Amino acid sequence: MKHFFYLLFLVLFVSSVTAQETQSILVNQNRLSGLINELSTYGKNAAGGSDRVAYSPHDIAARKFLIGKLEMLGLKVSVDFAGNIIAKKTGSNPKLKPITFGSHIDEVPNGGDYDGPVGSMGAIEVLETLIEKNITTRHPLELILFTNEEGGVVGSRAIAGQLSAAALTTKSSSGQTQSEGIRAVGGNPNRIMEVKREKGDIAAFLELHIEQGGNLEKSQKQIGVVEGIVAIEWWQFTFKGTANHAGTTPMNMRKDPLLPAAKFILAVNETVNSYAGAQVGTVGKIEAFPGAGNVIPGEVTLNLELRDLSSEKIWKIYSELESKAMTFAEENGTELQIVHQEVASVPAIANPVIQKAIESSASTLGLSTMYLPSGAGHDAQEMARLGPIGMIFIPSKNGISHSPQEYSSPEDIANGANVLLQTILRIDKELD
Amino acid sequence: MKHFFYLLFLVLFVSSVTAQETQSILVNQNRLSGLINELSTYGKNAAGGSDRVAYSPHDIAARKFLIGKLEMLGLKVSVDFAGNIIAKKTGSNPKLKPITFGSHIDEVPNGGDYDGPVGSMGAIEVLETLIEKNITTRHPLELILFTNEEGGVVGSRAIAGQLSAAALTTKSSSGQTQSEGIRAVGGNPNRIMEVKREKGDIAAFLELHIEQGGNLEKSQKQIGVVEGIVAIEWWQFTFKGTANHAGTTPMNMRKDPLLPAAKFILAVNETVNSYAGAQVGTVGKIEAFPGAGNVIPGEVTLNLELRDLSSEKIWKIYSELESKAMTFAEENGTELQIVHQEVASVPAIANPVIQKAIESSASTLGLSTMYLPSGAGHDAQEMARLGPIGMIFIPSKNGISHSPQEYSSPEDIANGANVLLQTILRIDKELD
Repeated sequence: MKHFFYLLFLVLFVSSVTAQETQSILVNQNRLSGLINELSTYGKNAAGGSDRVAYSPHDIAARKFLIGKLEMLGLKVSVDFAGNIIAKKTGSNPKLKPITFGSHIDEVPNGGDYDGPVGSMGAIEVLETLIEKNITTRHPLELILFTNEEGGVVGSRAIAGQLSAAALTTKSSSGQTQSEGIRAVGGNPNRIMEVKREKGDIAAFLELHIEQGGNLEKSQKQIGVVEGIVAIEWWQFTFKGTANHAGTTPMNMRKDPLLPAAKFILAVNETVNSYAGAQVGTVGKIEAFPGAGNVIPGEVTLNLELRDLSSEKIWKIYSELESKAMTFAEENGTELQIVHQEVASVPAIANPVIQKAIESSASTLGLSTMYLPSGAGHDAQEMARLGPIGMIFIPSKNGISHSPQEYSSPEDIANGANVLLQTILRIDKELD
Repeated sequence: MKHFFYLLFLVLFVSSVTAQETQSILVNQNRLSGLINELSTYGKNAAGGSDRVAYSPHDIAARKFLIGKLEMLGLKVSVDFAGNIIAKKTGSNPKLKPITFGSHIDEVPNGGDYDGPVGSMGAIEVLETLIEKNITTRHPLELILFTNEEGGVVGSRAIAGQLSAAALTTKSSSGQTQSEGIRAVGGNPNRIMEVKREKGDIAAFLELHIEQGGNLEKSQKQIGVVEGIVAIEWWQFTFKGTANHAGTTPMNMRKDPLLPAAKFILAVNETVNSYAGAQVGTVGKIEAFPGAGNVIPGEVTLNLELRDLSSEKIWKIYSELESKAMTFAEENGTELQIVHQEVASVPAIANPVIQKAIESSASTLGLSTMYLPSGAGHDAQEMARLGPIGMIFIPSKNGISHSPQEYSSPEDIANGANVLLQTILRIDKELD
């Protein structure tokens, strides 16, 4: 069956590129797999997890290894003031803006070997394949390995001009401030404003990434065509009743704020599920005060998070939940306070032309696809401020990420890299 | 109306005591009120609350003042090895065991002026009235001001032989260990075992106390006849699901333990309310782990407390709740772990003869009564191991206790002291 699709793809593709080229534009799965394995040795801990947090000695050593690797490919490699590693390949039309692509190599503490590395090593493999096959695109190509993605998409924020001075003073997982860390990886926080690019400075940005969820695996699809990166909104709900003696206060004389809070938690689940679509809603934090076994709580705080590609839908669901929470509080004689906290108010919608290019590339390669949103944030979200973006997802085993148990198969990774490669070639023709 | 009842009381009572006596056995409300006010000056803080925690300089100064007061009444006053202040008044029959009564004068940090002092000063006023009126009971009378009630009924536990060596090493609210504190108030922790009394060593124990709840106020009753002190059971419930990314995990692929936990919180309230009676059930603590706004909880722990005069009813309700919790967990695909923690497994039922004596005394005084359990623990609970007990409650304004807002009116306090006095006289005749 697969052979049939490959055959079909060759027949279709032969119309626009030479036979010589079409035969050569598959990445080398073994080489890519080997590169991911080699990268994983930088920061591997005793528990099998990765301690390659941004700015750590493991991160620095891995960056050195990759810069060497990229230079050996004959690429022009630099480290910008934000510490981003940038490798450039000239295009045939010097007037065109670059097609940019890449991901990150830093991990959360005790993380895995795939979140970031798949897209980063996949991008390097794509460049190596193009060089090996002597293919020159019209657009310049630019691979970016972003600085400290896990600690707040620091590198891509800098490029998008979104990194505040205050953000530079925050502590990173390595223990250093962002400023100290950026300096440690070869950047210069004092000149970080200079890395900012303007809208239109890129032709496109593409990112290959593991799904970090279980949709592809569950649906047995090989490639996820990302519709966009969701907006995220947070609210803190505080239900205020009356703290009282749990022994001497009769049931009918209580104003226990945990009761409306419990109703609200169930309502979040029901309401979010009552809408069609991929929106998610989560209560991840809850606390009762004073928090003693023998005291009726006087106050309960909880956190509501809503994510969706549509801000409008988020606020529609929120408004329904707000009204339910008010009813629950009122019925119980408790007060309700709500504080909104901005997290990522604007969704980053993937460019429709790029979405289509990803789907077509996958299907030409005989790979099954599904459209889905990215529920997690990515560097692509920041890059969307500068030009059209697209993301390619591959399956995550059991939907696990940010964990030593994170896993994607060599075949799935190679599929993703092949789709990235084909998508670059397609949009190189389709975009100007 | 009140006058009519007083008249009725006088007519009834004259049959068993002389007219001279009946006219003289009302406490002095102003004197009692003054004594409570004077005690409240020891440890009054700027916020209007009481910092007279056990073993503190305020506690020690107040004890000294009260010992002086009791000695001036001509009573035989001693401090036992547990630091309990004991004042004895001889009875006419030296073969009888003492009728004991009293309460405590220590407060919770930033507490009020009534929880403890009402019963303690009421007991002193009763003795002063009896002395003043030259009334001698058959039984010896023994007033006990117990050590550190708020910090674990330390003094009464010692008398009941329930104070473990480990308990002596725990820290009290004063910052000192129980041992250090007991020594500071004139006790001797090394000889504390010697204060232990045996079952039958007392004829009775009576305690006057504020209700600490809103039942009397709500029902507009003046005196609470305490049916007993409830048993208390604690359980920690842990619902275990799967912690996961709140953005990338679709709603239908979650095992969010907060959902069964929320259903359980509502079930506690519904189930406890579905039984007739005064039982109470509380979830006072809840925590979600890891407790981040963008992570679906992997684990939720909460604390269930049930209180009732009947252990059988407690366990019946518990069993219903356990089964509901298991159903909620199963429906959600989460695990459930329950750990039982013993708090006060045995209810202390008030002696029926004493309950009746309290009710009759109140009604003879023209005071309205209601029977109710004590949902809070008291020294009487420990004393119940040694002999028959009874407790008299007076109204707490708004049901508040353990707070500077704690308040009971001088009239209510005097009513309580009069009922205590009359109950002592009644059981002096009825018990042997």
